[in-house]
Amino acid sequence: MSGHIKEHNHEFFLTAGECNARQEMPLSILAQRIIEVATEHANMLGVGYNYLIRENQAWVLSRLAIEMTSYPGINHHYRLTTWIENYNRHFSERNFEITGNDGTVIGYARTIWVAIDITSRTPADLSRMTSLSEIVSERPCPIDKLSRMRPIANPDTTTKYRFNYCDIDFNRHVNSVRYMELLLNQWELEFHDTHPIARFEIAYLKESHFGDEAIVNISQDGNTANAEIIINGEAVNRAKITFQ
Amino acid sequence: MSGHIKEHNHEFFLTAGECNARQEMPLSILAQRIIEVATEHANMLGVGYNYLIRENQAWVLSRLAIEMTSYPGINHHYRLTTWIENYNRHFSERNFEITGNDGTVIGYARTIWVAIDITSRTPADLSRMTSLSEIVSERPCPIDKLSRMRPIANPDTTTKYRFNYCDIDFNRHVNSVRYMELLLNQWELEFHDTHPIARFEIAYLKESHFGDEAIVNISQDGNTANAEIIINGEAVNRAKITFQ
Repeated sequence: MSGHIKEHNHEFFLTAGECNARQEMPLSILAQRIIEVATEHANMLGVGYNYLIRENQAWVLSRLAIEMTSYPGINHHYRLTTWIENYNRHFSERNFEITGNDGTVIGYARTIWVAIDITSRTPADLSRMTSLSEIVSERPCPIDKLSRMRPIANPDTTTKYRFNYCDIDFNRHVNSVRYMELLLNQWELEFHDTHPIARFEIAYLKESHFGDEAIVNISQDGNTANAEIIINGEAVNRAKITFQ
Repeated sequence: MSGHIKEHNHEFFLTAGECNARQEMPLSILAQRIIEVATEHANMLGVGYNYLIRENQAWVLSRLAIEMTSYPGINHHYRLTTWIENYNRHFSERNFEITGNDGTVIGYARTIWVAIDITSRTPADLSRMTSLSEIVSERPCPIDKLSRMRPIANPDTTTKYRFNYCDIDFNRHVNSVRYMELLLNQWELEFHDTHPIARFEIAYLKESHFGDEAIVNISQDGNTANAEIIINGEAVNRAKITFQ
């Protein structure tokens, strides 16, 4: 273990080229930054990729919830601060605060991470990472915990998608952020123009692979949508999106 | 003008989550970094987004060539150094050197940027940015200049794609990096596994928009492929990819 730093933060700069059609930070970039800052903190704590791979294990993002009141704009500086809320032998709960260009809080995120054995793809026991318990923080995260998401009985829309080369990550599975983009792509540009995302929640249930044929189901009621990605009849993820 | 720094460099860290199926930096991430570092340097020189937008103008990436002998891996540090090779009233030529984890050079990139009037979408005159001529650098860039790419007469493969929400950038056009991904997606994972990209060259010819229906044509001869993306019968970009 190389340190016991309860909080880690990283300031970023948002270039025009990264922005979405609202000239703001896309949710997908924010999710990438969340994963990046979590990775940095795990590396600092000596429980990162290099530590787990020696035991043939890797961290896997299991759940993610993001709640934003506003988004950084072009040439804005923004900062992510992360801390561990809870840790046990099955999973680690890691939270994030996001501050905007003027330093005020613009959102929070909650994540749940599990470690898996790379060969068997089954959950690994985290109890040997005893030092993590020393850095559990009391810092509050004022957004709702991750909710239980149910199968969609009667989707309003159903589309198909085949996972391509650029969707595949270093584990040879579909990248976590690409699922989010596939879900966001179910709405037209004009809808997104007038409906920024207030809360986005996703549960990663199963892994999927290059060439898998996915079915995307959406069920929307007012500003809240439930979504699921189905492969071979099984949900690989479920999501809930609340638009402003 | 806020500075006259001939070279700008930025060190990055490559997380596992950013890597492709070869556990290396994807070309799309490298292209994002190239755009980011170019943006930073332009901002430092006082000719960035904030300067151009006052004249209702914006920088547009017109051409890009990347040549890599190897790619950064998981948890590697890498550095991009950028300088301006040439500048006239029509365009700016900006080059990049990429160094890997041990500091050795692993690749170079060449870019050509134009400024356009945001309303008319026509090229703007760069001659008022006189300070740029002071920072033109003699530093050599040892990769070939951008080549002339011709229409594909007899494509080996032709596929279709509709541009979605997440493909759209802050100018409400398709993001430069998304075109690259669309092209890379024309090969199967197994091909990419054994054929890392030695050189990727793309010319951005026309802008395209949300909902546009694109045709992607590929013509491949050994390790070299020519590609084009066609919308409404006109090429929006042409590319040439050399695999190792």
